[in-house]
Amino acid sequence: MTTDFGARDWFVGTMKGVVARIAPKTRVIDLTHEVAAGDIRAGAFALAASFGFFPKGTVHVVVVDPGVGSDRKALAVQTTNHYFVGPDNGVLSFALRQERITAIRSLENEAYFLPAVSHTFHGRDIFAPVAAHLSQGVPVRKFGPKLKDLVRLDWPGPRVGRKGIEGEVVYIDHFGNCVTSIDAAAVQSLGTGPLEAFLRPRNPCPVGPLYQSARPGKAVAVVGSSGFLEIAVNGGNAARQLGLRIGSVVKLGRR
Amino acid sequence: MTTDFGARDWFVGTMKGVVARIAPKTRVIDLTHEVAAGDIRAGAFALAASFGFFPKGTVHVVVVDPGVGSDRKALAVQTTNHYFVGPDNGVLSFALRQERITAIRSLENEAYFLPAVSHTFHGRDIFAPVAAHLSQGVPVRKFGPKLKDLVRLDWPGPRVGRKGIEGEVVYIDHFGNCVTSIDAAAVQSLGTGPLEAFLRPRNPCPVGPLYQSARPGKAVAVVGSSGFLEIAVNGGNAARQLGLRIGSVVKLGRR
Amino acid sequence: MTTDFGARDWFVGTMKGVVARIAPKTRVIDLTHEVAAGDIRAGAFALAASFGFFPKGTVHVVVVDPGVGSDRKALAVQTTNHYFVGPDNGVLSFALRQERITAIRSLENEAYFLPAVSHTFHGRDIFAPVAAHLSQGVPVRKFGPKLKDLVRLDWPGPRVGRKGIEGEVVYIDHFGNCVTSIDAAAVQSLGTGPLEAFLRPRNPCPVGPLYQSARPGKAVAVVGSSGFLEIAVNGGNAARQLGLRIGSVVKLGRR
Repeated sequence: MTTDFGARDWFVGTMKGVVARIAPKTRVIDLTHEVAAGDIRAGAFALAASFGFFPKGTVHVVVVDPGVGSDRKALAVQTTNHYFVGPDNGVLSFALRQERITAIRSLENEAYFLPAVSHTFHGRDIFAPVAAHLSQGVPVRKFGPKLKDLVRLDWPGPRVGRKGIEGEVVYIDHFGNCVTSIDAAAVQSLGTGPLEAFLRPRNPCPVGPLYQSARPGKAVAVVGSSGFLEIAVNGGNAARQLGLRIGSVVKLGRR
Repeated sequence: MTTDFGARDWFVGTMKGVVARIAPKTRVIDLTHEVAAGDIRAGAFALAASFGFFPKGTVHVVVVDPGVGSDRKALAVQTTNHYFVGPDNGVLSFALRQERITAIRSLENEAYFLPAVSHTFHGRDIFAPVAAHLSQGVPVRKFGPKLKDLVRLDWPGPRVGRKGIEGEVVYIDHFGNCVTSIDAAAVQSLGTGPLEAFLRPRNPCPVGPLYQSARPGKAVAVVGSSGFLEIAVNGGNAARQLGLRIGSVVKLGRR
Repeated sequence: MTTDFGARDWFVGTMKGVVARIAPKTRVIDLTHEVAAGDIRAGAFALAASFGFFPKGTVHVVVVDPGVGSDRKALAVQTTNHYFVGPDNGVLSFALRQERITAIRSLENEAYFLPAVSHTFHGRDIFAPVAAHLSQGVPVRKFGPKLKDLVRLDWPGPRVGRKGIEGEVVYIDHFGNCVTSIDAAAVQSLGTGPLEAFLRPRNPCPVGPLYQSARPGKAVAVVGSSGFLEIAVNGGNAARQLGLRIGSVVKLGRR
């Protein structure tokens, strides 16, 4: 379960109460509820970086839904290995790039919703009950009509140029590490030998295997646990120390 | 489980360890642990807005307990559908307004406490073990003597006047939405036709079904998912943008 | 499960996904994930203050690991009552002072890791899978070679002097209560009769059984729920009001 609801209110707990009523034996695991309010891309990235570590058959419910109550659709998606439930605003799309989709359904069958659906809390009234029913084995086709595709966010994939590879910061974590859109395969395509990452034209940092590849307090680029190059500072906070933000350009080239 | 213990310390985790020792198969669901320190009313509102979505027979443990160690009583309350455990300071009272109470007991039977009870952490030493025993089927009468009533907080229910209804902000959520004490029934009592909510004498905002009933960045009053009128800003933070606080007066009338 | 990963990213959720794949029936309880980034002592204290309240046989996984990827060892420790898994940087050592150790193993058997181990996220790739296997009954000797001892942090135990006992603030909780290194036994060694705690040479506060032993807004020293003397302000935030920090000296003597 992934949302932007935060921990302060009763929202996430209430969704779990709804799941417990419908599917008392289903386990709920929190991915995070601290996605920035309405930040669909951050939610999409968190899901993409983690869903593959969950058991086959997991139902991934993602509610980052600034358009709740509008005419955006709501989805249940089945892939070879997983189920995904959430609004059709792109929040599922980074994860689904990695999966083979076998069904996309629009959530329209009210038999699987709570009896009274509010205009403001579909997490509780639609997404939690649908996910609970899915976890109980209700087939995905029961939830509503087929859709041909879903809303997909642009993925700022690495651009390969004459002098190297260009990407951008797509996620900044709790420690200030800046995850870029340059994946491990792109890094490997540059071959062996020392590389450096340019955060600004004249400001390279070395690419190394570990945070400790740089001296304490110094910047280093590491292929991190999400499979993407990330800019880190050994023992420090890279975003703060280097002034990086979501969208900051990062270039990678040979030393 | 609802507390004001926050996520930083070991307090909530330790309560769950205690529950796991006594009742290894009992599931614990967090409602929130981010109630502002000692804010009994906020805890009471969170519980009231959510307990009804939990399975019949749920034990709701609420520890917002600024008087821990003093002579305030501790309670186990049984209603037709649920159990409630917490200090007798009013934190259970908003939820219990909605329930038919069948028993109120003062927690005094030390056989159901941890062997050593601290003066400062009854969540761990009294409330968690009592809740665990309740979840195992120990009848509520075992925990201590009957009480006739519990401490009840005043509910700032809507005041119906000549020109409309007056209420106040009772809760501000993570998104800045300001939940008022004006419930859906009070809104309906004004009949059909356009309504407006006055946050200040000359500052009305429309009442609509959706956050999107206002243009982006504009205020709207919506009957929200908790069953109360809330003041929101489409895509924004109403508390911050409109300067609303707990206790801010909101009037509702015909346009 | 205790970490410094925070709640914002997918890190903790992913560790739980890994546990669910290996050990679908194992329950995971969060102690806290809000240990300050890299604060090994705070993680050690949180664990020490709480592990004893968990069921016999619990696997305690602690990932406060600023040296991830370096050559620090990783441990599985068995005691008479519990298992402990984490980096060998001292984070387990305050808890283990209280336990009888029966085995210490270095985590080196890759058969119990995820197939691909990153350099930056051993919580997911090593500690979570090892803990999951332990919870399934894999004997601790399977995980790697014996170690004679582990890295131990100095415990700033109370120093007994001519005029009383001296300790220091070792942990500051969510409410601002300042837990000292002066344990209940040391307090009792001063005998019965009124005591006072000196935060600065001329600034005593009384020692009492309850937070309410002081008037509202006033300081009091209480043997708290963790078994140590803590400095509190009745209804207030002691750290902020009294200017206390980790390491602040506290002296205890007769009035």
